[in-house]
Amino acid sequence: MYINSIGHYLPEQVIPNSYFQEQYGFHDKDIVEKSGIRERRKAQVSENTNTMALDATEAALENLPYPIEEVNLIIGATYSPYDTVGTVAHTIQEKYKIAPAICLSLTAACSSYCNALEIVQCFFATGKATKALVVASEHNTRYCNENDPASGFLWGDGASAVFLSAEKIHEQDAKILDIKTNGLGHVGKSIRGVFLRPKDGGIRMPFGRDVFQQACIHMQKEAEKILESNQFTVNDLTYLIPHQANLRIIDYIRKSMKLTKRQVVVNLDKLGNTGCASSAIGLSQIYDQLKEDDIAVITVFGGGYSSGAVLIRKC
Amino acid sequence: MYINSIGHYLPEQVIPNSYFQEQYGFHDKDIVEKSGIRERRKAQVSENTNTMALDATEAALENLPYPIEEVNLIIGATYSPYDTVGTVAHTIQEKYKIAPAICLSLTAACSSYCNALEIVQCFFATGKATKALVVASEHNTRYCNENDPASGFLWGDGASAVFLSAEKIHEQDAKILDIKTNGLGHVGKSIRGVFLRPKDGGIRMPFGRDVFQQACIHMQKEAEKILESNQFTVNDLTYLIPHQANLRIIDYIRKSMKLTKRQVVVNLDKLGNTGCASSAIGLSQIYDQLKEDDIAVITVFGGGYSSGAVLIRKC
Repeated sequence: MYINSIGHYLPEQVIPNSYFQEQYGFHDKDIVEKSGIRERRKAQVSENTNTMALDATEAALENLPYPIEEVNLIIGATYSPYDTVGTVAHTIQEKYKIAPAICLSLTAACSSYCNALEIVQCFFATGKATKALVVASEHNTRYCNENDPASGFLWGDGASAVFLSAEKIHEQDAKILDIKTNGLGHVGKSIRGVFLRPKDGGIRMPFGRDVFQQACIHMQKEAEKILESNQFTVNDLTYLIPHQANLRIIDYIRKSMKLTKRQVVVNLDKLGNTGCASSAIGLSQIYDQLKEDDIAVITVFGGGYSSGAVLIRKC
Repeated sequence: MYINSIGHYLPEQVIPNSYFQEQYGFHDKDIVEKSGIRERRKAQVSENTNTMALDATEAALENLPYPIEEVNLIIGATYSPYDTVGTVAHTIQEKYKIAPAICLSLTAACSSYCNALEIVQCFFATGKATKALVVASEHNTRYCNENDPASGFLWGDGASAVFLSAEKIHEQDAKILDIKTNGLGHVGKSIRGVFLRPKDGGIRMPFGRDVFQQACIHMQKEAEKILESNQFTVNDLTYLIPHQANLRIIDYIRKSMKLTKRQVVVNLDKLGNTGCASSAIGLSQIYDQLKEDDIAVITVFGGGYSSGAVLIRKC
């Protein structure tokens, strides 16, 4: 399948690390040392997961080479929903009057973007859909506890939208060569490592150390596996786009895979952890820099746990 | 694809209509007249969407003709999540140590069960999965407002689990002949008709009349369309399993399609509206009564809006 157009949306409001100094005395350098995060974006009161998804869709629409009404599959990816009935996908369908279209929103935590892309791949394979829109949108600041010194400073808001087609539409469309996802509910602290219970306290990360360790193991493993199973090596890699949870995880993987800093896409310094939108925003940020035959790999790890990878080649 | 085993779980606590007489003066006969509901089940404080999903899985496990570890795709369906990170699917994977397995949970409101089955169909078509578990679980009483006289009395809790395989496992496995889903975000009151905003008041139904009318139109349409496109007629139908929102919707469809009361599965009199679990529980309740060549059709309508249908033949 092919990427026809991609875009992202970031809320205007910037929350610098100094904000948390007032909350619980962490200095800027403490937070940078712990996480690599310098600032993050926070949605306004009038914004939510659905409005950010619409704004990301607008950004992706600019370069869309066909009318949006031709889309026949819309998948929202979010673990921080505004509305679980009028979902991200239904909100987009409503705004643009896209019919007929299959619509749903899903979560596998921070892996959700990869899961959504994999479902598109499966729908395309059956011919049930031919053009799809996937929107990853997270409103972490609505569910996190800013006053929690363990993880309150990690989270940011944002969204990214990508239009996909089963057949190549334009010469410059990048090809998604492979997608793999894995549930890892059987591993480590599993569903207790990090959770988001909408009616019971929102986002909590009681076992941050286990999440950190599992992310290091599985994000590297997923990236290497998807390259290998498609007859590529790490040397063929132009960009690695890891889930953006912590710069120390990203640095560990970069060193372990012997990649340069230029090869590894980082946005969490400016955005914090934007959940399943983080790798989606990362892909959007470097998409225009991709040259012919460049290879990009998205690799993700999410709470629950889950992992996944996507292999992309610029045509 | 084939149904290998099915089961469901209902919380023990029964809430009769008399409970709402104390809340806002509705008599039993008022509620029966409005909705057909006489009682509903309510999860205990120790229960939630994930625990009910596990209990439904246990019920379905009794007749499973292979070890649960052979499942390689787990999909949770819910719009009333306990945890959007440690999802229904991950909770099941954790409990039974099912690995490797693709795991995710999704929502398209009350249509979610059909969407989950359709995704299984697509994964089976690609060979990415061969055995799947779909669990629909709703904890409506955690998100609804009991004090709302417009819709507080409608909701109930429950879950249903179904094991599926790409190839026939046992002689008696029923075959899923076809699945169709439709996003209807472009129709009527759309995302404003009924919604569930976890951080903004839970379940609300400001346009119940529009939801009612659209449900009547689209549930009948989906049922007739899936029969027709598979060369069946309404006369071939053994059971219609409609989404259980209101007995007046079900009665309208029954009369309009010229079906007898015996042909139409009803559980909302005892269970209320159990969301996307309602048709899943309905299928589980009649599954053992299906005889060779019997035809059952699930037809659903959900908030957002969404619709869908599933065509099943007992082999």
